[in-house]
Amino acid sequence: MKSFQETAIRYDGDQNQLWILDQQKLPHEETWLDCSRPEVMYTAIQKLKVRGAPLIGVSAALCLATFVKAGASMEEFREAARSLRQSRPTAVNLMWAIDLLLEQQTAEQVVQTAEKIYEEDVELCLRLGKHGADLIDDGDGILTHCNTGGLATAGRGTALSVIHTAHEQGKKIHVYVDETRPLLQGGRLTTWELARLGIPYTLICDNMASILMREKKIQKIFVGSDRIALNGDFANKVGTYGVAVSAHFHQVPFYPVAPYTTIDFEIESGNEIPIEERSSEEVKGVVSPREYQWAPEKASTFNPAFDVTPVDLISGLVLDSGVFSQAALKNGALKNLRPNLQT
Amino acid sequence: MKSFQETAIRYDGDQNQLWILDQQKLPHEETWLDCSRPEVMYTAIQKLKVRGAPLIGVSAALCLATFVKAGASMEEFREAARSLRQSRPTAVNLMWAIDLLLEQQTAEQVVQTAEKIYEEDVELCLRLGKHGADLIDDGDGILTHCNTGGLATAGRGTALSVIHTAHEQGKKIHVYVDETRPLLQGGRLTTWELARLGIPYTLICDNMASILMREKKIQKIFVGSDRIALNGDFANKVGTYGVAVSAHFHQVPFYPVAPYTTIDFEIESGNEIPIEERSSEEVKGVVSPREYQWAPEKASTFNPAFDVTPVDLISGLVLDSGVFSQAALKNGALKNLRPNLQT
Repeated sequence: MKSFQETAIRYDGDQNQLWILDQQKLPHEETWLDCSRPEVMYTAIQKLKVRGAPLIGVSAALCLATFVKAGASMEEFREAARSLRQSRPTAVNLMWAIDLLLEQQTAEQVVQTAEKIYEEDVELCLRLGKHGADLIDDGDGILTHCNTGGLATAGRGTALSVIHTAHEQGKKIHVYVDETRPLLQGGRLTTWELARLGIPYTLICDNMASILMREKKIQKIFVGSDRIALNGDFANKVGTYGVAVSAHFHQVPFYPVAPYTTIDFEIESGNEIPIEERSSEEVKGVVSPREYQWAPEKASTFNPAFDVTPVDLISGLVLDSGVFSQAALKNGALKNLRPNLQT
Repeated sequence: MKSFQETAIRYDGDQNQLWILDQQKLPHEETWLDCSRPEVMYTAIQKLKVRGAPLIGVSAALCLATFVKAGASMEEFREAARSLRQSRPTAVNLMWAIDLLLEQQTAEQVVQTAEKIYEEDVELCLRLGKHGADLIDDGDGILTHCNTGGLATAGRGTALSVIHTAHEQGKKIHVYVDETRPLLQGGRLTTWELARLGIPYTLICDNMASILMREKKIQKIFVGSDRIALNGDFANKVGTYGVAVSAHFHQVPFYPVAPYTTIDFEIESGNEIPIEERSSEEVKGVVSPREYQWAPEKASTFNPAFDVTPVDLISGLVLDSGVFSQAALKNGALKNLRPNLQT
């Protein structure tokens, strides 16, 4: 039985308990919720108390492990797993993790697989951090968008793992954090993580990033990714494309950072990535941690959750297996990779 | 004695009264404040109840006109004028208007000059609208940033006057409105104005404009300006520079719109424009109409009020005297203009 504590998840294998950090209350309150029971986890995922595609997958898997260890039958397990799988229908990692668990025959195998899913996430984050940190020079100013750290994964994150690792290596860096409208993951969550890690940062509104590039305050840009096509085009939190355009204009190197699990081996280019449009309320004001609307009630809005950045605007893709240059991506390097659980 | 009602200012020359629309309460409440007395106007300007450089200048001038008509001596007038001049020390139009009034010798001259300042503003806005609307084609999608309409001027505005005029001409246009973090002038004020004018619009977060340019939803971009250098570089609300960079990348025509009073004939280029940095609270959350902070209390921030866009990113400058191309601007066309009250 394993036990661990990460940024946003705590697992006690001996006591058979699982807690998650309530991300809806950050940064002003740090509250841990007991999510050992699948129905509680279901609500926590739905209400975005736990968020970030990798973290959702790991959290759901470990919750099902505690459930079978507490004595649930394999039938009860399968029912709970199928329910949890639907808690957020667009989270690919959640489906992948639960499908892997559903292939298992015994309670013991379920527990072992869930723990492996957790361990792999931690390991992939470490590898991303090392490969990405090699790209960072002492004294660099680094821009990031959205939240890609320990609040989005079980480990130390993707783009934020790169920043964390460079800081650990003793490189003197300064991070510029896009607030990331409309859901403000940068303003609320990345600021909270960087402060905890003791990494100096400056919070900016999304529309200020170009000014800092022009003033040569930003030497590198690292962002996460939600889905990567085989040609290197990638989807990420809305606003990423605009950052990439400005980086291109100002000749600032721009890198998405993601584990192999983010690659969609079924799609050739970013044109095949469907973009979910979200609620108008998010653009008319803010919805979390509290709701507050400042635009006219009847305002018509545009609110894509993600955008797609073409490979032409990418300097390189940081994967757990290394950094792939734009040229390598265009030559089809991703087609040779295959998705396998790596622990 | 003149009387008029504009979007955000109402003047009754016979009753000798002046009201302004409280912009701090928009868009949810429309409240008119009696600002006939200089000490009330002083507070209204300071608290941003009246905002927009041209509108502040006109409002202060007309307030002083009501003051002298109510029987104030020229000495009392001069004291009130000097006080109002300091209500917002960076508003160039306010200083220009009040200095013009202070040159007058009689109460009657003060009233006539104040009314002329108002009339000129209305006239300049109309001319900007006509010159700019010539650039708009039927069916265009138009992006704008910040608020540049009847809430920023006494007339129909600068960039928003262009949009208003094209709509009036029967051109079928759709406006995309940047919310304009951190102070949300687009989300709160431009949406309110466009709804009143019956012009179809879509509110977006600033970081979504690039996506719309890529999708060819935006054919032209019109923005206002706070200060224009003799070489055509111009300062405007923060975020304008990023829009210009993206417009350049996507080859979307990009036009600042401003009356001759915005040209600073003392400076050769945008490098000489000092940029005021504002309070951290604005980036950590929102401050108006209510205050609400979502970032960590100790977050370090960057918050320039304006940014400078170089002439190289401008397709043309829409002035009251016509549209000046980038080439004309670079050839020093602005040096031949001279600032004169035009009514």
